[in-house]
Amino acid sequence: MTPALAATSFATVQVLAFDIFGTVVDWHGSIVREMRALYPEVNGSAFALAWRAGYQPAMARVMERLARGEQAWTLVDDLHRQILEDILPRFGLAHLGEADRRQLNRIWHRLDAWPDSVAGLTRLKQRYTVTSLSNGNLGLLTHMAKRAGLPWDCVLSAEVFKAYKPSPEVYLGAARVFDLPPGQVALVAAHHDDLAAARSCGLRTAYIERPLEFGSDRRKDVSPQVGNDLHCTSLLDLAEQLGC
Amino acid sequence: MTPALAATSFATVQVLAFDIFGTVVDWHGSIVREMRALYPEVNGSAFALAWRAGYQPAMARVMERLARGEQAWTLVDDLHRQILEDILPRFGLAHLGEADRRQLNRIWHRLDAWPDSVAGLTRLKQRYTVTSLSNGNLGLLTHMAKRAGLPWDCVLSAEVFKAYKPSPEVYLGAARVFDLPPGQVALVAAHHDDLAAARSCGLRTAYIERPLEFGSDRRKDVSPQVGNDLHCTSLLDLAEQLGC
Repeated sequence: MTPALAATSFATVQVLAFDIFGTVVDWHGSIVREMRALYPEVNGSAFALAWRAGYQPAMARVMERLARGEQAWTLVDDLHRQILEDILPRFGLAHLGEADRRQLNRIWHRLDAWPDSVAGLTRLKQRYTVTSLSNGNLGLLTHMAKRAGLPWDCVLSAEVFKAYKPSPEVYLGAARVFDLPPGQVALVAAHHDDLAAARSCGLRTAYIERPLEFGSDRRKDVSPQVGNDLHCTSLLDLAEQLGC
Repeated sequence: MTPALAATSFATVQVLAFDIFGTVVDWHGSIVREMRALYPEVNGSAFALAWRAGYQPAMARVMERLARGEQAWTLVDDLHRQILEDILPRFGLAHLGEADRRQLNRIWHRLDAWPDSVAGLTRLKQRYTVTSLSNGNLGLLTHMAKRAGLPWDCVLSAEVFKAYKPSPEVYLGAARVFDLPPGQVALVAAHHDDLAAARSCGLRTAYIERPLEFGSDRRKDVSPQVGNDLHCTSLLDLAEQLGC
């Protein structure tokens, strides 16, 4: 994608909405680092991957219950805690008490940004409204941003729309918040399924390469896919491509 | 309130939630200034007061409909627009077309901060999580913050809770977002009714004197009332009292 093409498809975009886990912050590396300090006997990479693997199924169960009309909305903090309860015994941590479990669950509030994130967002913010658009809950996203210095103009979450991505309510809800047609909002994400769902709602899309999202032992295929308006190696590259 | 007392009642507070219209931004002065530039033939002060006077009744009508179980949630942008339609003829502006009405209605996104707001928030943000807690909608609050440089950690609005202040859902909702007991959240506002409602939900409260909220012709009584934990002349005074 050349800068000229980028300028065409993004010409009317006013809001950049960012996926968070994996796109802006390094959940795998952060959990590995913290586990190494707290519980060095545990394989931190396997622990991080197991925790994250429970995430999509847990959200799917909530969405199924919501679809049946049940009062099932659940914060991601609580989903993370449910998954944690499941995996602790498998990693020899069944003995952890309530305070330790609570402290460990908050690890998702303490994730480190990828090295380019703060600088990239700071440049993009000069021209665009920058907002999170994450399944993470508002408290989690706020704590994370404050600690990591992510300079959001707005903190948007599935919690606001009572639906998780990739439900259309989230993408269309973000456009409605800013009173814009979907084509004037772009989703920025490191995941093609998230981008595809946004695109089917009419949003513009920018893919960010994060080959180490799952750690260096499980390098991710980050080759370009058709359909995305932009393909970027980092948030700084996105800023560069958008002329910010 | 001495610093020592302030420290006692605020000792466990982690989040400062700010009322916006009148507390952080000067709606009256901003509308007067913009009307003077756009429509100098209109009495800008009377226009601002008439517009604002329609606000509480409009929210009350929505809350009554919500209480009857109707799908009545309405963004403040839309309430402002309804009130604007009502008052335009009274000010000789019935001839305005759609584009002008839309542009005028967005005046609420362009309100100027009081002179102490940005500096005060910047100091308070060093120690506390600072969030808006306004009936204004998320888009309005985001545009306002970006233009005025308000350094929020989080943008919370009635829109998130689908209830307007002074409904308890809003104050308790803010505490829930941050997974805190209400006593660890403080409402900062220039309005005693807002503070009283927050207090009845268990929040801490800080009153901010804004004697010119309604303009210099309608100076507001800003004398202290019992019940508030802090009484401050500005957001910088709040920062001072909290040792920030």
